[in-house]
Amino acid sequence: MIPWSVDFAGRFEEVVFESELLKGNPLGDPARRPLWIYLPPDYDAEPEKRYPTIYMIQGFTGQLDMWRNRMPFRKNFPELADELFAKREAPPCILVWVDCWTSLGGSQFLDSPATGRYHSYLCDEVVPWVDAHYRTLAQREHRGIAGKSSGGYGAMITPMLRPDLWGGLATHAGDALFETCYLPEFREAVRFLREKYEGSYEKFWRDFRGRPAFSRAGDEVLANEWAMAACYSADEDGTVHLPFDTATGELIPEIWERWLAWDPVRMVPKHADGLRSMRAIYIDAGRRDQFYLELGAEAFRRALLKVGVTDFFFELFDATHTAIEYRYPLSLKYLAERLSVL
Amino acid sequence: MIPWSVDFAGRFEEVVFESELLKGNPLGDPARRPLWIYLPPDYDAEPEKRYPTIYMIQGFTGQLDMWRNRMPFRKNFPELADELFAKREAPPCILVWVDCWTSLGGSQFLDSPATGRYHSYLCDEVVPWVDAHYRTLAQREHRGIAGKSSGGYGAMITPMLRPDLWGGLATHAGDALFETCYLPEFREAVRFLREKYEGSYEKFWRDFRGRPAFSRAGDEVLANEWAMAACYSADEDGTVHLPFDTATGELIPEIWERWLAWDPVRMVPKHADGLRSMRAIYIDAGRRDQFYLELGAEAFRRALLKVGVTDFFFELFDATHTAIEYRYPLSLKYLAERLSVL
Amino acid sequence: MIPWSVDFAGRFEEVVFESELLKGNPLGDPARRPLWIYLPPDYDAEPEKRYPTIYMIQGFTGQLDMWRNRMPFRKNFPELADELFAKREAPPCILVWVDCWTSLGGSQFLDSPATGRYHSYLCDEVVPWVDAHYRTLAQREHRGIAGKSSGGYGAMITPMLRPDLWGGLATHAGDALFETCYLPEFREAVRFLREKYEGSYEKFWRDFRGRPAFSRAGDEVLANEWAMAACYSADEDGTVHLPFDTATGELIPEIWERWLAWDPVRMVPKHADGLRSMRAIYIDAGRRDQFYLELGAEAFRRALLKVGVTDFFFELFDATHTAIEYRYPLSLKYLAERLSVL
Amino acid sequence: MIPWSVDFAGRFEEVVFESELLKGNPLGDPARRPLWIYLPPDYDAEPEKRYPTIYMIQGFTGQLDMWRNRMPFRKNFPELADELFAKREAPPCILVWVDCWTSLGGSQFLDSPATGRYHSYLCDEVVPWVDAHYRTLAQREHRGIAGKSSGGYGAMITPMLRPDLWGGLATHAGDALFETCYLPEFREAVRFLREKYEGSYEKFWRDFRGRPAFSRAGDEVLANEWAMAACYSADEDGTVHLPFDTATGELIPEIWERWLAWDPVRMVPKHADGLRSMRAIYIDAGRRDQFYLELGAEAFRRALLKVGVTDFFFELFDATHTAIEYRYPLSLKYLAERLSVL
Repeated sequence: MIPWSVDFAGRFEEVVFESELLKGNPLGDPARRPLWIYLPPDYDAEPEKRYPTIYMIQGFTGQLDMWRNRMPFRKNFPELADELFAKREAPPCILVWVDCWTSLGGSQFLDSPATGRYHSYLCDEVVPWVDAHYRTLAQREHRGIAGKSSGGYGAMITPMLRPDLWGGLATHAGDALFETCYLPEFREAVRFLREKYEGSYEKFWRDFRGRPAFSRAGDEVLANEWAMAACYSADEDGTVHLPFDTATGELIPEIWERWLAWDPVRMVPKHADGLRSMRAIYIDAGRRDQFYLELGAEAFRRALLKVGVTDFFFELFDATHTAIEYRYPLSLKYLAERLSVL
Repeated sequence: MIPWSVDFAGRFEEVVFESELLKGNPLGDPARRPLWIYLPPDYDAEPEKRYPTIYMIQGFTGQLDMWRNRMPFRKNFPELADELFAKREAPPCILVWVDCWTSLGGSQFLDSPATGRYHSYLCDEVVPWVDAHYRTLAQREHRGIAGKSSGGYGAMITPMLRPDLWGGLATHAGDALFETCYLPEFREAVRFLREKYEGSYEKFWRDFRGRPAFSRAGDEVLANEWAMAACYSADEDGTVHLPFDTATGELIPEIWERWLAWDPVRMVPKHADGLRSMRAIYIDAGRRDQFYLELGAEAFRRALLKVGVTDFFFELFDATHTAIEYRYPLSLKYLAERLSVL
Repeated sequence: MIPWSVDFAGRFEEVVFESELLKGNPLGDPARRPLWIYLPPDYDAEPEKRYPTIYMIQGFTGQLDMWRNRMPFRKNFPELADELFAKREAPPCILVWVDCWTSLGGSQFLDSPATGRYHSYLCDEVVPWVDAHYRTLAQREHRGIAGKSSGGYGAMITPMLRPDLWGGLATHAGDALFETCYLPEFREAVRFLREKYEGSYEKFWRDFRGRPAFSRAGDEVLANEWAMAACYSADEDGTVHLPFDTATGELIPEIWERWLAWDPVRMVPKHADGLRSMRAIYIDAGRRDQFYLELGAEAFRRALLKVGVTDFFFELFDATHTAIEYRYPLSLKYLAERLSVL
Repeated sequence: MIPWSVDFAGRFEEVVFESELLKGNPLGDPARRPLWIYLPPDYDAEPEKRYPTIYMIQGFTGQLDMWRNRMPFRKNFPELADELFAKREAPPCILVWVDCWTSLGGSQFLDSPATGRYHSYLCDEVVPWVDAHYRTLAQREHRGIAGKSSGGYGAMITPMLRPDLWGGLATHAGDALFETCYLPEFREAVRFLREKYEGSYEKFWRDFRGRPAFSRAGDEVLANEWAMAACYSADEDGTVHLPFDTATGELIPEIWERWLAWDPVRMVPKHADGLRSMRAIYIDAGRRDQFYLELGAEAFRRALLKVGVTDFFFELFDATHTAIEYRYPLSLKYLAERLSVL
């Protein structure tokens, strides 16, 4: 009933996935995770047909149910995706909506001793399970991944790490070129710490946990830097190292190097073979992105060209980082078309 | 399953309400409306018990399903409300979630020839239906209404207009003192019109309807002023009059007076008897509210005092206008306690 | 010596003017005022020649010596004006730089019982003195006035009040259409008062006077509203009335009407004859003016048209309110050309 | 005549300095420079007395005459300095106001093949000349240097480079810790270049030179990064190297290293002996500095402590980077007291 809801042409199956890999994760976050599988309109009517699969992942602080958040006068992405398939504007696909949320806000879809094994969870648990339970085309050529912001980050690095599993990727304003997207915020974090928390991250977290989240200035920056450090530069024992001195903002080169090792732009040369083998690469970002992620997009584009990847979609569009879910159907269509080719 | 969902102690009934009064409304908006009724934890176990009823209404652009939007690391208000009752921190109540959305963004919970009869819909259709179908304490003494922003506005003016129906109200940052909350934005509207739409509201709406809503600077201000005019200063034939010259921002006194007639602060003297009869009045706002609605709250407070209403809750708290749903349980508890008294 | 200074083709005479009218002014501000007279390049060489006179007045907080402030990589207006005449891009004029500063920040070039008789000072003391001491063309047809911001305000209202003295005016982003330029700031003033000064203007002024001026947020707004009230709505005994309730921002209609009586846009009909007799009217403003003074410019333009004044210069240009001294040569040339015609 | 001017107790001598070292500088900027010498109140009355000397240098885009810019309701620094000596709040000193402006905005008080030999100009031309012409105490123990922003930078590095000349320094919000003050702006520069200048710095400069300076968004950032590169990373032939890729913002490590070699924080260890020999070190910055220079101040403080410099003044105060000239008398007094000790 528009505008309160839409009738779906396809259908969602919502399951709870019992992860072995996430059990006992360092943050004590749930190992039982929601997982949604969207089956396109003709799935039930064509019991022999197999479909490409596209995995949807979320940005920082995203949790699975947020996909259904409603913005004024807009459809949410599940509705837009269904509409795309209902109108036959893209070849039918199975969509898989995976939750890699952590109580720090996110996992960057990596395995980290400070957060848990979310990369493995996604690649080694969810993917095989989906292939076992649904009529997927189970080869890499027919499997893609897409996301925005930290989800765009995940969509870039996951196929680089596992080209055996993934044949397509779409990044909307994905975290990249870390000196442009992260580093400029370090000084803000330092100031917030000094002015509000006596320079102590511990005090920040205690305060943050004891009141409505993101209700004070500084929450976003402070939570984000810590969470990224937990993903990029945690020791085996779970100790989190920040790449800057919390009293001055001075860069700590050896930690910063650990971050840079996870910068998608800098990962390209090492993973050039995998990237060259992709069937679909979609890159976009808003020209006014608050985090300047269009620079990361441009740098990723150039890094791809440098290793001989020339066939991809690229666009900088007129928008900020916020509320750009209307872009996702573009990448979905792009991936669906290329990953459908038999 | 925390954080993705919570198990409710009470339960929701979700119905579709077929309104007679909204049929053929001028905007062609649906007359069939979602309506949610929340029944508190002991409702089924105590089949003889009757409950106070508290109606929840939404701010501008709010539509019923948005109540379930998830913000990072937070519960949404339905979850918070249920938690309040589950923990017995407030006497059990029936909550009714009413949708007065329009395709202009909202109705201000008024009857207007430009939008429809939302005031009557709420008071003359929904209220009797709820009393007929649920075990409410059906007297005004046990019926309250609460909302934020335009919902706070509705919560102020609805009981003033119908003190026979309502015995309590709660306004969170409700629209009030129109020269402080609306008038300062007129100049912004004029500039946006001039710079982007050749001074024409028609061009704005055409553009706005043809792309993702609220994706361009100016959308909020332009949509809001128009929608308010549709509620406050429309002629019987539906013609909408703006209270300012769209070329200069010059105030048009006769239209502005029509707006002021709907300013809660200015309505108080005329509705003093009704207000004096309220059992519960809750007023709050953030001290850093973007729309300076804390000034309207303060002015409403003073207007109440002037007519002898002295028993109410009042607080300005440290926050903006955004993401203050964590305040709603405070007003819910306040209303529940006072409206429960037999 | 560029860029540190320029050699002037014309020359400045700097005198101290002993005003009778400002003696004993209510603020105790100096009655001895600096006054600059700029004599164009050929003034000394042509001892019989008489010149049009253009008076330059300043915006809020302006004091005469500020004309010489240097902005990076730019000439200041005295240098630009001299350059205009040196290059013969405009007919030679005498320029008179008048100081109507007060310790509240300004006088709006009005006579007010709270500040002093600055209108009379300008019109009845300075003008005759200049005509007596310099070879001016001493008729109104050859006398103009120009300014920016509050100086633009003065340039609009002074000729309206004294068309016998003035034959031309130029307003750059002059204060006008008070509901768009002043009213929206009242709410800000109220909030600053509440949050920082316990709602007391007295406390504000005490604090403001005891530390570097304009070093705290709120200084600009608070000082401005008070100063405007001192100019527009002071009683004969000097009592200053603000047009809003300092606790809520509620408009006080009877005081607000006193302000509106001084709104240039609203003064036009009453002074239509004088305006119709002007030889030169120049109006401009930046399209992104922080105070939305381009709306006042547009409204002034429309008010002029309505009374039959059709021959004037009008332009909205791409800039804010700040650092637009590069526009002044345009109006100077415009005035000079028209006021030179014999 | 307050507030338009003050009568000085001391006096200024304004000379034009004919520099040999600046002749034929790469930018074609003047080799003839204004130089001001302020002689304290008793200078003429005590013809045998010798005085400490404190050199005042300016921030980016500063040119000597700007010292006299008037801000509303404030004295400028020359007036404040004179007042300090007139009231005998500090021991009398000779003040020397040196101009190291360039047509790129500044020189960072360095010798650079892209701008000129401003470090040598200051140390090897101006200092000896002053000592030859005025009754200075001509030993390093009695010579100090002070400035704000880029002037604070100059005040930090000049004594490090020439401890034989300088015995005291004062930095107000001086450029330091380059990853916090400069690097975060690179991404802004890239975006402005892309959106307005097709990625070309040449187009920026052409546009910038052809209209009022600093009248478009981006001017400050673009001019600043280029000027800093001209100072920190120009080749012998004058070629300027930016430390970032202008298309992406990617850091260019080898150029960035050249910048870091000029970071005062990083220069400390190498110049530890000189710093330990200083008689007066004054450091401050605003806690809300737009460029986060309080972090550089803090890092400089820590770097000093690390090499055993423990006797200095340090304060972070509540202000931004703007309009903090009221702090300069504090450092002047501090330097004057310490550099006066015989």
